[in-house]
Amino acid sequence: MKTIKTFLFITLFTSSIFSQIDNDKIDSIIKSSLTENKGYNWLKELCNIGPRLSGSENSLKAIKWAETKMKSIGFDSVWLQKVFVPHWERGKIEKAFVSNSKKYLNKYFKVTALGGSVATPINGITGKIIEVKSVEEVAKLNNAKGKIIFYNRPFDNSLVNTMEAYGKAVDQRSIGAIEAAKVGAIGVIVRSIQSNYDNNPHTGAMRYDETINKIPAVAISVIDADFLSKAIKEDENLEVTLILDCKKFDDALSYNVIGEIKGSEFPNEIIVAGGHFDSWDKGCGAHDDGGGCIQSIEAVELFKRLNIKPKRTLRTVLFINEENGLKGGIEYSKLAQSLTEEHLAAIESDRGVHSPRGFYVTTDSITFNKLQNFLPYLNKTKIDWIKFGGSGADVGQLKNAKALFGYVPDDQRYMDYHHSENDTFDKVNPREMELGTASISILMYLLSENGL
Amino acid sequence: MKTIKTFLFITLFTSSIFSQIDNDKIDSIIKSSLTENKGYNWLKELCNIGPRLSGSENSLKAIKWAETKMKSIGFDSVWLQKVFVPHWERGKIEKAFVSNSKKYLNKYFKVTALGGSVATPINGITGKIIEVKSVEEVAKLNNAKGKIIFYNRPFDNSLVNTMEAYGKAVDQRSIGAIEAAKVGAIGVIVRSIQSNYDNNPHTGAMRYDETINKIPAVAISVIDADFLSKAIKEDENLEVTLILDCKKFDDALSYNVIGEIKGSEFPNEIIVAGGHFDSWDKGCGAHDDGGGCIQSIEAVELFKRLNIKPKRTLRTVLFINEENGLKGGIEYSKLAQSLTEEHLAAIESDRGVHSPRGFYVTTDSITFNKLQNFLPYLNKTKIDWIKFGGSGADVGQLKNAKALFGYVPDDQRYMDYHHSENDTFDKVNPREMELGTASISILMYLLSENGL
Repeated sequence: MKTIKTFLFITLFTSSIFSQIDNDKIDSIIKSSLTENKGYNWLKELCNIGPRLSGSENSLKAIKWAETKMKSIGFDSVWLQKVFVPHWERGKIEKAFVSNSKKYLNKYFKVTALGGSVATPINGITGKIIEVKSVEEVAKLNNAKGKIIFYNRPFDNSLVNTMEAYGKAVDQRSIGAIEAAKVGAIGVIVRSIQSNYDNNPHTGAMRYDETINKIPAVAISVIDADFLSKAIKEDENLEVTLILDCKKFDDALSYNVIGEIKGSEFPNEIIVAGGHFDSWDKGCGAHDDGGGCIQSIEAVELFKRLNIKPKRTLRTVLFINEENGLKGGIEYSKLAQSLTEEHLAAIESDRGVHSPRGFYVTTDSITFNKLQNFLPYLNKTKIDWIKFGGSGADVGQLKNAKALFGYVPDDQRYMDYHHSENDTFDKVNPREMELGTASISILMYLLSENGL
Repeated sequence: MKTIKTFLFITLFTSSIFSQIDNDKIDSIIKSSLTENKGYNWLKELCNIGPRLSGSENSLKAIKWAETKMKSIGFDSVWLQKVFVPHWERGKIEKAFVSNSKKYLNKYFKVTALGGSVATPINGITGKIIEVKSVEEVAKLNNAKGKIIFYNRPFDNSLVNTMEAYGKAVDQRSIGAIEAAKVGAIGVIVRSIQSNYDNNPHTGAMRYDETINKIPAVAISVIDADFLSKAIKEDENLEVTLILDCKKFDDALSYNVIGEIKGSEFPNEIIVAGGHFDSWDKGCGAHDDGGGCIQSIEAVELFKRLNIKPKRTLRTVLFINEENGLKGGIEYSKLAQSLTEEHLAAIESDRGVHSPRGFYVTTDSITFNKLQNFLPYLNKTKIDWIKFGGSGADVGQLKNAKALFGYVPDDQRYMDYHHSENDTFDKVNPREMELGTASISILMYLLSENGL
């Protein structure tokens, strides 16, 4: 009976709160997104700047671009929030090759340094390979001294949700070097975490423990991972040499880019849309997360374009440094807590810009039930559900907001590009991206009109 | 109250009918599809044969390939059903260029003959251009004699559903030549019907009326359509010459390819999965509808692969000639009506092989409500809904079946490829395609276990 009561409640509730919702405005948001493709063209401009790794010169160029763009398209105010971010550079050399083997001598592998890796000595490190499937397995090794640990547990393509498969593989990359160093290994090679099968390794963040020896770490393409696995079974004396010249610098000054349109009735109630503006230094971070940032800009800009006056303040936040530090999200949350403003809700788009599927939300159960009333409107952009779930790394810092949303597009292709040279503008389809922008913009409109 | 009663009914009903559903089997279908990628690799083989226009030599090669493949992968029986199909060939020449204009003389346009068009005389036809937005507008023309009608109403990208946008544009292509000939025009140029903006015209079927003069017709790329529209405004004396050498032959012998696995308890109750095996003669018909055909093969083959014995008979039907005649669908429906078998249900996949979204179904309201109980199982493959809607052109011929389903994948990219040189294997993502195969296979499993 409980379910039936809830059902009745929702039905009655819907008719009362939604008298003020203007379907024409919602339809105009969709039409304008899909036909004008403004955000899609802005993403092209952004991608032309290149990758936006935290602390890099390019990231500052992109920040300037975003500030200028947001000012030029009519935000009421645009400002930069200072953030100090880690500054690591890949350098120019990343090589891995077989340096001892009768059969495979001088075979080169496609590798890429993991983000944050230390360099090797100038002539590299050389060692035999121990293949493992997990960090737990490494902890039990007693023969790892002087060797290179090869983490080779594949991305589990049997899982329907690719983010889940990513989550189940990523510990090898994030803490693999710490665990390997603990048992005396001199380096780490990690099977690239990706859903497709190609020769293009995907990078990503790794961590060190200040109390443990820091050893270099690379991702190896999945094709070369399979090759290496086979080769070491054929030749137990095979050795690999790894050369990296990456470098960590002092933390660098960077910025969150923030812009807003003031609410006409409740200006102190803020609704945020955001993504992370930094990317890895491969491709141009078109899906991760240039696209999500542009959606967050355009979702707000559409109100200006269509002359829709929001009751509550709509704010775009481009968070810096999600990939390797989360400093932007942390700094913004400090600001949000220190001000007299109330963050009513925040929406993060950081799962690529494929076709809309739903919204995850972190909130209480009463608000959750109220939100289901938004579905008939969101469904116009193919949003089929609002479920309990995580919002995103940056927006997730805003603990006081009443509802934190994660925009969820289709996820089947995202892990083909993610953190790799394949994450480029040509992988973005304008209709998919713009329909997602409309989803986010409409959610902002509903929140702005109704509150929570 | 009616809704609440229905809700209670469904809840009670679910627990009783679904005691026999084996979640492990459903999960194994998903896992096997996503990790083995068998269908995806079969599609690659099929695409390597080339396009499969009805009546072409290639289409017969592909039919042989499918028959052999279905036999080799363990269908209980595989057979060909004879179908006579239209046989039209594009020929080698399709040219359109400006033949009279001071400014634009000898500008060539990217055009492609519409499927079924007559040829021009060997030196082509030449005429001034009248641009229109609709067939209704043509009917009112009194100055069309000796001229070429240029249908230039764009694909409406403001619509969220691309199939709807297609449906609203396609009359220009399908009956444009008839209407133009009625008012004395000598040829037709139609703006390519597509969601993206490029220089690659999309073909498709057109019709003639045997009582009206048959005039040649081409699609022009959207970029060139915009150019032509501008050019004729600048130069009212501009003339275009069109040269085509396409040809219609006598109807050709072709085949539906049919294979099945017999049901263990109700072998006379048939559940069909099907797509159309012919394609246009551009690209290789990877999405339209090679992918749907392969899904229909693999959805059934998965039962063999996983040793799941269906209670009812599962049948794959690859219908020939959906694009320009529907002869395969019509012939199969005749066979279905003449046999003692009962077609319980049929599922068509002919909307591309992007990520799964839902199923349309044509059925009665009681069956419709029962089917909603399938959703928790189908949702495992990201099927979010079952709605009333059309199944598909071929399966739609089976008027006696209790439920006719149309598999609905995400549609945002489909009209970028459809009927063009872009509809090639590289546009297919293995996870998207295989997840859809699992959706169809699980629906067959639920229907086979439960009946309707």
